[in-house]
Amino acid sequence: MGSAASPLDAALVVPPSATAAAVVTQEELKRVAAYRAVEMVESGMTLGLGTGSTAAHALDRLGDLLRCGALRGVAGVPTSLKTEAHAAREGIPILALGEAPGIHLSIDGADEVDPELNLVKGRGGSLLREKMIEGAGKRFVVIVDESKLVPRLGCTGAVPVEVVPFGCFHTLGLIRKVFDGLPGFSARLRTVAAKDTAAKEVPFVTDNGNYIVEMFFDDGIRGDLREISDRLLQITGVVEHGMFLGLATEVVVAKKDGSVIVLDKK
Amino acid sequence: MGSAASPLDAALVVPPSATAAAVVTQEELKRVAAYRAVEMVESGMTLGLGTGSTAAHALDRLGDLLRCGALRGVAGVPTSLKTEAHAAREGIPILALGEAPGIHLSIDGADEVDPELNLVKGRGGSLLREKMIEGAGKRFVVIVDESKLVPRLGCTGAVPVEVVPFGCFHTLGLIRKVFDGLPGFSARLRTVAAKDTAAKEVPFVTDNGNYIVEMFFDDGIRGDLREISDRLLQITGVVEHGMFLGLATEVVVAKKDGSVIVLDKK
Repeated sequence: MGSAASPLDAALVVPPSATAAAVVTQEELKRVAAYRAVEMVESGMTLGLGTGSTAAHALDRLGDLLRCGALRGVAGVPTSLKTEAHAAREGIPILALGEAPGIHLSIDGADEVDPELNLVKGRGGSLLREKMIEGAGKRFVVIVDESKLVPRLGCTGAVPVEVVPFGCFHTLGLIRKVFDGLPGFSARLRTVAAKDTAAKEVPFVTDNGNYIVEMFFDDGIRGDLREISDRLLQITGVVEHGMFLGLATEVVVAKKDGSVIVLDKK
Repeated sequence: MGSAASPLDAALVVPPSATAAAVVTQEELKRVAAYRAVEMVESGMTLGLGTGSTAAHALDRLGDLLRCGALRGVAGVPTSLKTEAHAAREGIPILALGEAPGIHLSIDGADEVDPELNLVKGRGGSLLREKMIEGAGKRFVVIVDESKLVPRLGCTGAVPVEVVPFGCFHTLGLIRKVFDGLPGFSARLRTVAAKDTAAKEVPFVTDNGNYIVEMFFDDGIRGDLREISDRLLQITGVVEHGMFLGLATEVVVAKKDGSVIVLDKK
């Protein structure tokens, strides 16, 4: 793998619209963070390719750098069909997980980042493939705007749990028991408006054919996150959850003032 | 719920072919164990209904007792579509998990039973629904012939692990790492002969649309089973495994000499 003196450096001038004075929208902040993360990519790397609006900026940038020749021989393991299609449009060669001899670096957004770089991901409904791929690599670089930094996971919205459809309400009951008596805790099956059925709402279905239980905490999750993770995973019917504990190695944060900071795993 | 003096007792004469002198085949032993377990059923109970050749004898017997009026008001939560169909033929009212206010008693076979009444189940390919339903009830009565009693789990064949199809070979690699360096350990994706494809073998698909990894141990699993369970469940991509730890409350064992013993949880 190359070093600091790779031909990449010259190509990685952040475009004018993303410099300090011009940064205004959250979308632009996402782009700034994504471009900064792509600076870490070196020719020959196999990348885990994230899903979502922030990760999409990274794919755009990777495509630019491949087309201009600043990057060569980069391949990607996509975390969703949508990302696979986007990567193909950008000319990024696609590998399946398992085909790749090793993933050097993954880049993806997150819904929340806590001070220990633990994440909540999957509010868009997709978490299992991300966790598999991003957990498989050596480095996982998270790209966020500063609104995603939280003192505790679960502060700003749902923490998703992927569950098997069979017995999902029973499983929901067991998930509630994990947080039994915790004030401000609630959980529900995620639903979407029905298209073709008499029902108004139907369960949201993941890429893997499973359902999602959304957990809500008034003031975030307090307590030992690994213990909570184990208790959730021990429930028969729970496939995976959206807490990414100890997986992120770096977090690139685009701040409202236009500056970018990179948080490292201690 | 009735007591020892229920009208059931009179009906529960073990049929002549299953008495000591006549017992010869394993099939008969399974039937003896199943009939003995059904003696524990009382009118009004909601039952978890197992799947497999041994559990099928219990369904037959439940049907007999309902038809002759010795049992009334019994409902069943089936652990598979096959069991649901069988129960319907026997006239046992069916409830879905979650519809049932509570499961009083589950009856099912097992592939292995260790001295602490931990089980291996799922060699037939079905384990998740069983674990969900049998773990949901107050009592779980296991019915086996004595060939299923083992000193350690994993002594006599595969220990199945249900995995998400996406990235299954990556998941297989992570499962192998849990037992890294253990002599005599191996793991493989369970396959079946292909019907309509050019491939000779295709992955076996579970009721839940997942695949099965089979783990093999030369001399059974040594070590802390709960810790091993947690390590397997922590793997992203693992949905559940076939070790049923601490779930069985009683094990009815039909012995080759025709006698039946009931092992209780200490």
